[in-house]
Amino acid sequence: MKKTFFTVGPSELFPNVSSYIREALENNICSINHRGREFAQIVEHTVSSLKKLLNVPEDFYVFFISSATEAMERIIENCVEKRSFHFVNGAFSGKFFSIAQQLKKAPEKTEAPFGYGFDLSKIQIPQNSELLCFTQNETSAGTAIDMEDIYRIKRANSEKFIAMDIVSSAPYIDVDYSLVDCSFLSVQKGFGLPAGLGALIVNDKMVKKSLLLNDKGLNIGSYHSFPSLLSSINKGQTPETPNALTVHLLGRVCDDMISIGLEKIRNDTEQKAKLFYDFFDSHSELKPLVQNNDWRSKTTLVIKTPNGSKQIIDKLLENGFAVSSGYGEFKDIHIRIANFPAHKVEDVERMLRML
Amino acid sequence: MKKTFFTVGPSELFPNVSSYIREALENNICSINHRGREFAQIVEHTVSSLKKLLNVPEDFYVFFISSATEAMERIIENCVEKRSFHFVNGAFSGKFFSIAQQLKKAPEKTEAPFGYGFDLSKIQIPQNSELLCFTQNETSAGTAIDMEDIYRIKRANSEKFIAMDIVSSAPYIDVDYSLVDCSFLSVQKGFGLPAGLGALIVNDKMVKKSLLLNDKGLNIGSYHSFPSLLSSINKGQTPETPNALTVHLLGRVCDDMISIGLEKIRNDTEQKAKLFYDFFDSHSELKPLVQNNDWRSKTTLVIKTPNGSKQIIDKLLENGFAVSSGYGEFKDIHIRIANFPAHKVEDVERMLRML
Repeated sequence: MKKTFFTVGPSELFPNVSSYIREALENNICSINHRGREFAQIVEHTVSSLKKLLNVPEDFYVFFISSATEAMERIIENCVEKRSFHFVNGAFSGKFFSIAQQLKKAPEKTEAPFGYGFDLSKIQIPQNSELLCFTQNETSAGTAIDMEDIYRIKRANSEKFIAMDIVSSAPYIDVDYSLVDCSFLSVQKGFGLPAGLGALIVNDKMVKKSLLLNDKGLNIGSYHSFPSLLSSINKGQTPETPNALTVHLLGRVCDDMISIGLEKIRNDTEQKAKLFYDFFDSHSELKPLVQNNDWRSKTTLVIKTPNGSKQIIDKLLENGFAVSSGYGEFKDIHIRIANFPAHKVEDVERMLRML
Repeated sequence: MKKTFFTVGPSELFPNVSSYIREALENNICSINHRGREFAQIVEHTVSSLKKLLNVPEDFYVFFISSATEAMERIIENCVEKRSFHFVNGAFSGKFFSIAQQLKKAPEKTEAPFGYGFDLSKIQIPQNSELLCFTQNETSAGTAIDMEDIYRIKRANSEKFIAMDIVSSAPYIDVDYSLVDCSFLSVQKGFGLPAGLGALIVNDKMVKKSLLLNDKGLNIGSYHSFPSLLSSINKGQTPETPNALTVHLLGRVCDDMISIGLEKIRNDTEQKAKLFYDFFDSHSELKPLVQNNDWRSKTTLVIKTPNGSKQIIDKLLENGFAVSSGYGEFKDIHIRIANFPAHKVEDVERMLRML
């Protein structure tokens, strides 16, 4: 039986990805020289399509890295001398904070309970924070932060940098990059691609900060320092031999999403999210973890399964639908469902009928 | 026209890789959960096949990372408090040294001219070096270091760690891992796979050293610190969402190489190397860069093109063969030719007839 993956990432492949892979194999994309013109054109095309799709200003850089986890490390390493400040309400925002600790910085944080958002009016951001770190969509808890809240914080702290994890909300989330210095994504979620590639979207001020830290004698890493990534991407290259196939595929999928229109993708995402939440809000047993509508993620839903997640997961699997279990300690009492561009309205309706 | 890639990496795909990719797509390898049992089985299978193929002792760890360049960074970060010592005779050994500098260590080096080996009897290894770094096969210059020389150095410096780059010599090179604490490879060379994955083969002493540095308060990185890699691989996982497709493919290719027999692959490699060197040694114009037979790489050859590399590269391309240009400043005056397991004797003969 054909399986549809509503898992929160890796997830369902975007339509045509399999045929793009076959085509790439025929065109020797996996054998071509990563320092040659042909691959540089692929890199330039993918960067340009991703920027066009996400409406990223011309003067931002796109750096390819291997995962969103790597993005967190590189951002802290390159742009924090001492203090980052983290908005933590789940496992991925918590990981961003831990990485700063592991890199021997002195991060601080504000925490919200699992499944809750932040009461931003009450949060005191320390004066000496250099970088404010947001996980815009927290995949472990099914929460999302309103972009207007992030913009408000940036406006009130314009001298501080903003780093934003949009791993499980891109390309759905509409970002005003003039107020977000740095954001990052990986390709196995909303872009419906095989895992093993991430992208950092960074402005020039962040690169300048990394140069400043380097001049001060700090360790900003080696091949994936921002100056090294910049010098390579300016030649249509990456510092290392990259995951060339997926760089190519990301460009193809961005092109397809541009053709479909991001407005339509966003409208469809909201329509499917409404189908999901309406269904679970009126379900007798399976309820959304996140109560407050303002905090609910549109792209990754967490549903409580008071009688255990396993029976629901198994029942759905028998009917051809894969969903994720809860994150970490919530493995047995939650399920998580993705609502990415690869997921069709009909598939959502078919799956909900099974429940 | 079908093209055969004799490029030094990315290179010709190993036979059946395209069909393994198609099969993986049908089996949803790109969508399955990277924290689930199915993927853990893939990881465990690939680790076990790679260890079996390369004859790696049971008590060594295999860590998946994203590239050989990353391997260099992680080794220095995790296992050098202050001083590494580098044997530099080309661009990749030079990069290993630079990475140690960028990470604010105090590396030292011995250098041999491009195209030459080391006169090991004359090299003074500083007493306080913690890690000796070898690029066993230097892809930029077409040189290789005799394993017996490396073993001799290890025996004379048994308290120091040995790190060895076997990126462009694995799986051909036969390593006695009891004398090599750490080695690393990437998959787009001898394994004939799409780029975007590397493997670190590490003994327990190296992991203990990283724990020691961590206890001393040093920065050993975050998600790809050795302790983090170890804790994940023990669960059949990686710290981040990995390049799952290529982890799977590496296992398949190792299985195939085990079936063929590594002895046969090594014999074929030597036979093809002899064909190449005999041909170029007696060629009127195109001569191997490396004169001394003891220093010649069997897997990546550098050939001088006194009348320019471009005309040779173009002529070969017209006849369906891709080779690499010289490295860096030698771009226009050398060509580089790979001799990997994916390259058939008949293809070598056909290409040489063109020259």
